[in-house]
Amino acid sequence: MALFLFMQQLHEVLVEKVNQKTKPIGSLGRLEELAIQIGLIQQTVSPTIKNPHIVVFAGDHGIAATGLVNPFPQEVTTQMVYNFVQGGAAINVFAKLHEVGLSIVDAGVATEFPAELPIIHASIAKGTKNYLTDFAMTELQANEAIEKGRTIVQEIYNTGCNTIGFGEMGIGNSSSAALIMSNVLQVPIEECVGAGTGANIERKLNTLRQVYQFHKLETNNYSPIELLQRIGGFEIAMMTGAFLEAYSKGMLILVDGFIATAAFLLAHKTTSQIKDHAVFAHCSHEKGHSNMLNYLHAKPVLHLDMRLGEGTGAALVIPIIKSACAMINEMASFESAGISS
Amino acid sequence: MALFLFMQQLHEVLVEKVNQKTKPIGSLGRLEELAIQIGLIQQTVSPTIKNPHIVVFAGDHGIAATGLVNPFPQEVTTQMVYNFVQGGAAINVFAKLHEVGLSIVDAGVATEFPAELPIIHASIAKGTKNYLTDFAMTELQANEAIEKGRTIVQEIYNTGCNTIGFGEMGIGNSSSAALIMSNVLQVPIEECVGAGTGANIERKLNTLRQVYQFHKLETNNYSPIELLQRIGGFEIAMMTGAFLEAYSKGMLILVDGFIATAAFLLAHKTTSQIKDHAVFAHCSHEKGHSNMLNYLHAKPVLHLDMRLGEGTGAALVIPIIKSACAMINEMASFESAGISS
Repeated sequence: MALFLFMQQLHEVLVEKVNQKTKPIGSLGRLEELAIQIGLIQQTVSPTIKNPHIVVFAGDHGIAATGLVNPFPQEVTTQMVYNFVQGGAAINVFAKLHEVGLSIVDAGVATEFPAELPIIHASIAKGTKNYLTDFAMTELQANEAIEKGRTIVQEIYNTGCNTIGFGEMGIGNSSSAALIMSNVLQVPIEECVGAGTGANIERKLNTLRQVYQFHKLETNNYSPIELLQRIGGFEIAMMTGAFLEAYSKGMLILVDGFIATAAFLLAHKTTSQIKDHAVFAHCSHEKGHSNMLNYLHAKPVLHLDMRLGEGTGAALVIPIIKSACAMINEMASFESAGISS
Repeated sequence: MALFLFMQQLHEVLVEKVNQKTKPIGSLGRLEELAIQIGLIQQTVSPTIKNPHIVVFAGDHGIAATGLVNPFPQEVTTQMVYNFVQGGAAINVFAKLHEVGLSIVDAGVATEFPAELPIIHASIAKGTKNYLTDFAMTELQANEAIEKGRTIVQEIYNTGCNTIGFGEMGIGNSSSAALIMSNVLQVPIEECVGAGTGANIERKLNTLRQVYQFHKLETNNYSPIELLQRIGGFEIAMMTGAFLEAYSKGMLILVDGFIATAAFLLAHKTTSQIKDHAVFAHCSHEKGHSNMLNYLHAKPVLHLDMRLGEGTGAALVIPIIKSACAMINEMASFESAGISS
């Protein structure tokens, strides 16, 4: 109750602080909302973005080996991890430009990476099983992935980071995300499936309809752990744990696109207050993402028709949230500037 | 013809370069379009943003002295110029954060600024005349303002800047912009008038209906100079000249919100190719802006419900266009990264 009253008072003080800035009330739109939200998360009237960091979780999917849902071969997950390490991927370029820390995690890629490769080695297994005919992972593996996600975030938090975003890489993972969406939102799979990185949609959809029946997704409201076991991916499970830990550490959480939001749906199912800590970076061009956002009553910041993943949307929203914090911290007030209000 | 062929080939090469980057084709959406556009403007396959700069033109409006269209008193234009100089306004904060140069111009504020004030002193007169009963300015003044706008951009261009955005400050100037919009787009004034910085809309609209009749805006398709004379502002006229000069220097032009786009409409009426050089930074929350953008077939980059002016939208789009350039310059290609495409 004391915290509730404190937060209510803090909200009023933040609104008043923003309204006293030398601009018409409300004229900075979303930036004002973001400044107030970040102030509430950090429980301060002077919110700041400290050591922002993006973690990219990579994992492989048994279904992808069939080629039924993905235009790129499964090896591309491994190849992209090497591309991340060499600094050649989109997320590398954006993280460098916007001065954002970047960690790459092997959550369960179908390869053996050399131990000296500068990534976080947290592989649960060399890819999930094919959920067309099997469970993707065991309950133990799902819990282990969640725990590893938590540990990774704890370690980044301990370096003085207060703002974290998550990205992913995993050939075939838009299928897993679509199945999670379908079950959590209780909407037909047809509304959840898009091209991903360029799939043949009809074949992808037919395959996922079979998965849907095999796992009886329509008639069950599965728990997050059950969903991860049946149709999840290791990178998605680890991201779910990462979201939950970022929330319990009081961090500002940047939610990226379609697959990251699917993991967020699972975290949200566990702890619905996590939404207060989340900035939804962008609305992905991937079909289904806007419906996920509507379900969460979430208003994305950017609309750039992107559908890449890797945390690229989360990286691009960082200059915007930094702008919101600079506004509330550095702008003059009507009084300090001697302006008629 | 040679230039046309060169540009067509350059376009193909830019598209191919973007498509070879390690990402699914099209998956960076607007960023890809921006990289290609900026490459075409700069006639290079490696576009860069050099010394980006924002110029804020300030001017007063005779109509504002009546208080009929503006909630803030006219003195606020002057007070805000001092706020810009002291670094307390929103545009100062965003320009500093995003490392953007900033110049403040007295285009015609209703005050005498000390000569030592570090602004560009380019005042045409101490505010326009009240266009409810008079012409806002003479033809000579309109041309003089356009020329000064051109000179200011030339000087900034000479410092090595290739990317420029324009903002404005002028109590009452959303009325001038609405009248320009109404005449250029040939739409009723009712579709062009919003709250501006918080006006009583009915009173503002009634006043502008009288202006509309007095200047016979409905039945005439005025030239840019005639429109500026009748219902313009010095800051709008100077910005029109600035847009035209930025185009003739081959710069990338960042178009801010409602008032900047009204000035852009006048520049566009003179030289329609200017649109190829323009990035429309954001869609303002001010009613009418989205219709202006539709008229220009322009797709704004940001949607942040802002309606402040000062070039704040232009400043916030700079990290996005820098991201687009970094993508095309720094990302690995499928070939260089050894990835199966």
